[in-house]
Amino acid sequence: MNTFRVADATTDTLATLQNEFKQLKAQGLSLDLTRGKPGSEQLSLSESMDGILAGNYIINGTDTRNYGGLDGIAAIKELFAPAFGLNTSDIIIGGNASLTMMYQSILFAYLYGFNGEQSAWKNLNAPKFICPVPGYDRHFSICEEFNIEMITVNCDENGPDMDAVEALIKADQDIIGMWNVPRFSNPTGIVYSDDVVERIAKLGKIASENFRVFWDNAYAVHNVENNAAELAAISHYTSKHSTEDSVIQFGSTSKITFAGAGVAFMTASEKNRAMYLKHLGKSSIGPDKINQLRHVKFFKDTAGLTSHMQKHAALLKPRFDAVLTDLNANFKGSDALTWTTPKGGYFVSVDTQDGLAQRVVELASECGVKLTPAGATFPYGKDPKNSNIRIAPSFPSVEDITTAMQIFSVCVKLASTEKALS
Amino acid sequence: MNTFRVADATTDTLATLQNEFKQLKAQGLSLDLTRGKPGSEQLSLSESMDGILAGNYIINGTDTRNYGGLDGIAAIKELFAPAFGLNTSDIIIGGNASLTMMYQSILFAYLYGFNGEQSAWKNLNAPKFICPVPGYDRHFSICEEFNIEMITVNCDENGPDMDAVEALIKADQDIIGMWNVPRFSNPTGIVYSDDVVERIAKLGKIASENFRVFWDNAYAVHNVENNAAELAAISHYTSKHSTEDSVIQFGSTSKITFAGAGVAFMTASEKNRAMYLKHLGKSSIGPDKINQLRHVKFFKDTAGLTSHMQKHAALLKPRFDAVLTDLNANFKGSDALTWTTPKGGYFVSVDTQDGLAQRVVELASECGVKLTPAGATFPYGKDPKNSNIRIAPSFPSVEDITTAMQIFSVCVKLASTEKALS
Repeated sequence: MNTFRVADATTDTLATLQNEFKQLKAQGLSLDLTRGKPGSEQLSLSESMDGILAGNYIINGTDTRNYGGLDGIAAIKELFAPAFGLNTSDIIIGGNASLTMMYQSILFAYLYGFNGEQSAWKNLNAPKFICPVPGYDRHFSICEEFNIEMITVNCDENGPDMDAVEALIKADQDIIGMWNVPRFSNPTGIVYSDDVVERIAKLGKIASENFRVFWDNAYAVHNVENNAAELAAISHYTSKHSTEDSVIQFGSTSKITFAGAGVAFMTASEKNRAMYLKHLGKSSIGPDKINQLRHVKFFKDTAGLTSHMQKHAALLKPRFDAVLTDLNANFKGSDALTWTTPKGGYFVSVDTQDGLAQRVVELASECGVKLTPAGATFPYGKDPKNSNIRIAPSFPSVEDITTAMQIFSVCVKLASTEKALS
Repeated sequence: MNTFRVADATTDTLATLQNEFKQLKAQGLSLDLTRGKPGSEQLSLSESMDGILAGNYIINGTDTRNYGGLDGIAAIKELFAPAFGLNTSDIIIGGNASLTMMYQSILFAYLYGFNGEQSAWKNLNAPKFICPVPGYDRHFSICEEFNIEMITVNCDENGPDMDAVEALIKADQDIIGMWNVPRFSNPTGIVYSDDVVERIAKLGKIASENFRVFWDNAYAVHNVENNAAELAAISHYTSKHSTEDSVIQFGSTSKITFAGAGVAFMTASEKNRAMYLKHLGKSSIGPDKINQLRHVKFFKDTAGLTSHMQKHAALLKPRFDAVLTDLNANFKGSDALTWTTPKGGYFVSVDTQDGLAQRVVELASECGVKLTPAGATFPYGKDPKNSNIRIAPSFPSVEDITTAMQIFSVCVKLASTEKALS
């Protein structure tokens, strides 16, 4: 196959592509590349959790069936700490969603403040978050829910542009937060470099004392390739720079065991934990400790968790390969599309030529291929370049991904050619 | 045993009681009547839930292991509706705590309002809740968390004084809520009469359009005696009076299956559900559907749930009997103590002579018997008469309850006599 180049497009190219498109459309397919959720085979990897307790609900004297234990059982903290590179004493265990713990952290900061009533974010003129882009739409939705303004910062392969981040924070003490998915970022799959991690850990030195980094390490152990880059432990740097209060870390087993019935966790400084638990206690009788115990019995230790993740990787790798094989075959060296080649996580991020993402999504939709809406990876759903599209290959079969990507590629070529000739 | 009467107390009585007290204190016991939580044998009734799925996680095409289903799976709504007398289509399924759903309902009403932004409770001068007393401390804590003023209303055996409630609401449109535990009330164990239920259902006609009744039917099916009074379905009356928007009902299986790993639910009108789910969706990826499915398989139907509750009753009845036998033996016809004789729920509520509750709790504590702090059953922890004490007999063994109640009775007599002779 010759490399497709927009610059070379002719009316013949357009006619050929329009014809191809018409044929694809006529197939009446229904395929979906939108959902960043585990596939059925991945979920089956954890099936033995049902029945794993064999009637033993008590651990270290705690009856997991009863009320209590607002911050979770010790055994699961001891499991998670080495597996995720965290300090056991910093951990709070949640329910089935780290998203809920992020929301609650922001809620409590908004209503009550990290540093007493006066510090509540609701008292600020214009509370703002820094949002590296492209990013995760559910982070942005929480900010919108609390009327927190979002300021975007671009990323390269090492993470967010830290010169820009530092300049913004120095200029505006109403910036009270920053989102991050530091390993296998949603959607680009990049891993923050050590230097970026350290600079983020140092933001607490220049930011408002009410500023918090939201470190959503959702894909901490979610390697697809063996040689994926490791992420530096941000707690190492916050400890080095005495900025422990400025970072809250989040994670969960949603994409390790069950997406809807995993165990979420956060880590925070003593001061942040006290604030969080004080307010959490008004609404919670403690998270589901039985499910925590199931996880403890299922994994046993870090080695158990690591080998489990290798089984996920074995299922995900052919799906990522199906996406990347198609992109390479159609667009290697092309001026029509750039993309990331993640070594883990759940997404491949592509960029069309400026102004074409929405058109590509529309064309794909006409052929029965559902793509994440253009703009979804940006605050307020607005991608200023209208170029980014997130591809989520975890859920469909390899065969469906291959078919969907063939259609996707034709749609990119058609949209690009339409524009070049218009 | 002669009936103890404070009016007959002499210095001899005091000396005898002080001596008894000294001997009890010397035993160095450690007993606890504070905790309204199921005992270990009760929790064991649901033990077979672990393993009950036998690898079948899919129901009606829904993979319970994956993300989604913000309002819960249909099968559990269909189980709960007849068992709890609810309309299937009104139900939203939550996580492991109805407390969380109550908190969230108040949170969303406070920040965003039931009737658009202008109606947010935070915009009111002085938002207020009506709190029937004695009541449940965790309800009161939520009001405190949102700076909602609490106005107390007394209860008799039929429920809250509705003349008082209606007069308060007519006089003040800043009253935007009312707490209720309508069946086996915490702590008195009373069941609201049909007339009270209907009058509560009609409050929506005289209250602000932002007013909501919080109907915490925590003990809906928690009979201890076979002949316990039924509770009228409030939805029958809200439907009759077209006040559907004014009542939100809550419940859970926390005291049916596992206290820390049950399934919570609420029912609300279409308008209220839309508001709740819109905001819930910002913080949740959906509740744990696997646990919902476990409950469906475990109970199968209303008959299954009813027979399960009879097993709870068999364990709870001797515990309630141990409390009531002691109270009858020591205080029947006495001027020292009055109490309720609940036919279900988790508590017995006693009233000392005015001003003595705190002293009784202190004396019991000296003998190693932990009682719920005096005042805990009132807003702000302040019982104006300092007379109410909540006794929770579900968790200890019958033997421990019997011992604890013997001590309790001596402490009541001693405190009463001290006061009479002072």
